[in-house]
Amino acid sequence: MSAPGQGSGPRGGAAGPREFFTVRTVSEALTGFRPGRRTGVDSIGLSEALGRIPAQSLPAPHALPGFARATVDGFAVRAADTYGASEGLPSYLDVAGEIRMGEPPEVEVTPGSAVAIATGAPLPRGADAVVKVEHTQAATPELLEILRPATPGEGMVRADEDAAPGAELVPAGRPLRAQDLGMLAAAGLVEVPVHARPRVTIVSTGDELVPSESRSLASGQVRDASAPALAALVREAGGEPHFAGIVADDREALSAAFRTALPKSDVLVVSAGSSVGARDETAAAIAALGEPGIWCHGLAFRPGKPTLLADCGGVPVIGLPGNPRSALVVFRLIGIPIVRQVGGCTDPPPEPTVRARLARDLPSAAGRLDLVQVRVKDGEAVPLFGSSSLLSILTAADGYVVVPEAATGLAAGSEVEITLYG
Amino acid sequence: MSAPGQGSGPRGGAAGPREFFTVRTVSEALTGFRPGRRTGVDSIGLSEALGRIPAQSLPAPHALPGFARATVDGFAVRAADTYGASEGLPSYLDVAGEIRMGEPPEVEVTPGSAVAIATGAPLPRGADAVVKVEHTQAATPELLEILRPATPGEGMVRADEDAAPGAELVPAGRPLRAQDLGMLAAAGLVEVPVHARPRVTIVSTGDELVPSESRSLASGQVRDASAPALAALVREAGGEPHFAGIVADDREALSAAFRTALPKSDVLVVSAGSSVGARDETAAAIAALGEPGIWCHGLAFRPGKPTLLADCGGVPVIGLPGNPRSALVVFRLIGIPIVRQVGGCTDPPPEPTVRARLARDLPSAAGRLDLVQVRVKDGEAVPLFGSSSLLSILTAADGYVVVPEAATGLAAGSEVEITLYG
Repeated sequence: MSAPGQGSGPRGGAAGPREFFTVRTVSEALTGFRPGRRTGVDSIGLSEALGRIPAQSLPAPHALPGFARATVDGFAVRAADTYGASEGLPSYLDVAGEIRMGEPPEVEVTPGSAVAIATGAPLPRGADAVVKVEHTQAATPELLEILRPATPGEGMVRADEDAAPGAELVPAGRPLRAQDLGMLAAAGLVEVPVHARPRVTIVSTGDELVPSESRSLASGQVRDASAPALAALVREAGGEPHFAGIVADDREALSAAFRTALPKSDVLVVSAGSSVGARDETAAAIAALGEPGIWCHGLAFRPGKPTLLADCGGVPVIGLPGNPRSALVVFRLIGIPIVRQVGGCTDPPPEPTVRARLARDLPSAAGRLDLVQVRVKDGEAVPLFGSSSLLSILTAADGYVVVPEAATGLAAGSEVEITLYG
Repeated sequence: MSAPGQGSGPRGGAAGPREFFTVRTVSEALTGFRPGRRTGVDSIGLSEALGRIPAQSLPAPHALPGFARATVDGFAVRAADTYGASEGLPSYLDVAGEIRMGEPPEVEVTPGSAVAIATGAPLPRGADAVVKVEHTQAATPELLEILRPATPGEGMVRADEDAAPGAELVPAGRPLRAQDLGMLAAAGLVEVPVHARPRVTIVSTGDELVPSESRSLASGQVRDASAPALAALVREAGGEPHFAGIVADDREALSAAFRTALPKSDVLVVSAGSSVGARDETAAAIAALGEPGIWCHGLAFRPGKPTLLADCGGVPVIGLPGNPRSALVVFRLIGIPIVRQVGGCTDPPPEPTVRARLARDLPSAAGRLDLVQVRVKDGEAVPLFGSSSLLSILTAADGYVVVPEAATGLAAGSEVEITLYG
């Protein structure tokens, strides 16, 4: 690193890639920075498929449930045989037999007859309704009284009522949910084509950093807190994190690490050094990495101004601020959508939110998005302030409030929406 | 299974465990059915710990960050030396040297001197503030002009500002979030004591069921859709699903399967047959499984009335309705909280919700909770109706609306809260 006053401070100096100093808004980044890269397709078993992204719409190979089924316990009948039936004047039907669960029906419902059937069993030929057992009465073991009329289709589902052949069972691009897996299982689709998890390489830089496994620290050293936390966010986004280690704040070392990581990565994340000098070294190394190169070198975002976004030969590169707290906030807001997009997710899962009254004013500058950590208690959102180097602000928070770019702040007492950490 | 009319229909019969026909409300089940079982404690690495449940509060082994750090790029000073400084009348300080990142400071700040420092570097002895480089100007390489006064503590964090020694880093019982892992990494806690994932055994019953791998079906057969979907919900709840196979609707076979599964299970889930006869067989087999036994045998819940809850020798047993859709709805509402509780989770993650106008009336009976699947579009919640045997209702849904027990329905146009599927 270079200390300020040595020529690479914020006021310039030859080392800084000043020609790239494009600052964008968060909205511009979310809509405008859209690398086209998509991961390939894997075929995986249903038991591993929760949350994975179908690479294509999956159609039903045949009708589901595949046969007309009773949805109540009772008697399969011809509905016409029950018209006009009442408790006072029942219809009388001959009990022609019983349907066995899980077997093709052997009996048929002919006019004037009924067949005993349980919920889920296949309807016998000739039947077009099932009368609930509660609406019947046994006159003799062979003779049934129907006490209420049934309409055609009552007490049953059609053979294709859950899905017609070729109907879409689950859409492409939406993470598979529990019920989607149930539907695919019902259709006999035991393997699903899904997008491969994006390989997200995390490079940490900072001469002060030591691996988080380090037992003791010298004065001035800190353990790398960002990498494990970023890896967890990558997992939340459906990606597969790879940690490329801690690299010195030196352009040559950074360039070498980036060039090694790039061909193995769908997304490259650089958890940059915290000083301006270190960030300049990182930016220069990324700028040299490939075309079209740096898309923005700064976001109108607090905390998260020193964020760099680049597209290096089709691989999105995300340069994060050096403070762990800022790095996590930026990756949650900007990085997670990029990882999801590369992984083929077009319909991201909803985030938990809650509304609460703001306990105090949140000042902000117009044109800048502020993301403020809050605790939520008794319907009140209490902002947590402190240096962006403090992780404890994030671990104490229940969620965050966004002060949008157009706003110049939010007033105490106003109702705000809080995005909750899950 | 026994078909109705053969003696085991809903009107009774010797086979049904009528003595247990206790119907409870969903609220009673959520508050009253609280088996005390908890899983043991495993020690796992941070990289595997996302979403896991700390078995105890984890304290900081030492102060964090561990040394006073600069939070801006600039100059470490004695604040008193800057009092009264202005652009017109700067304070002049001798530049005594530079702090190197990641190394113990070798220089000291004496009265009248300043030391160059970068964000994140350790404060030198004698300094109590850091002046931003923007608020300074180099008169000569050795002489610095301070253009604004600094107050003590400005531009820095204290050695214990992120955590004092012994302070709680993360609480017990709350699933570990990305930032929690960052905090633990910062403290050098690379292994975390967490609750073991609850082993949840899923037994499917139903003579109509065949494994979901079955390529072709005979008429009357259906693939087991519930088991793979329930396994996914178990995973969402932090449990480890084990599938014990499909068991015939026969009390002896069920008893044998349950007795084998029970000692290996923290929670036992029975995806019951759909007919009343099959459910009676299941209930009888569960009733014989252990004390205190069946807690409720029916919930005032649509869809989910035929739900059975039991505590068999300390293992919670959940008997689900036979229809896959009802089974998933019940497990989401009742089963997930039980799995979480057994796994030591006292602070479950929030669920995503959204408010929308109801597109049509939802009638309900007082005293019964109704859970209605909805699609959400343009601020409108459109209820999806259809037989509870249809999984397609669930795959088409974005979430669900709950009509609480006290309500007799919800009117079209009223604003409702929808819990979204994630």
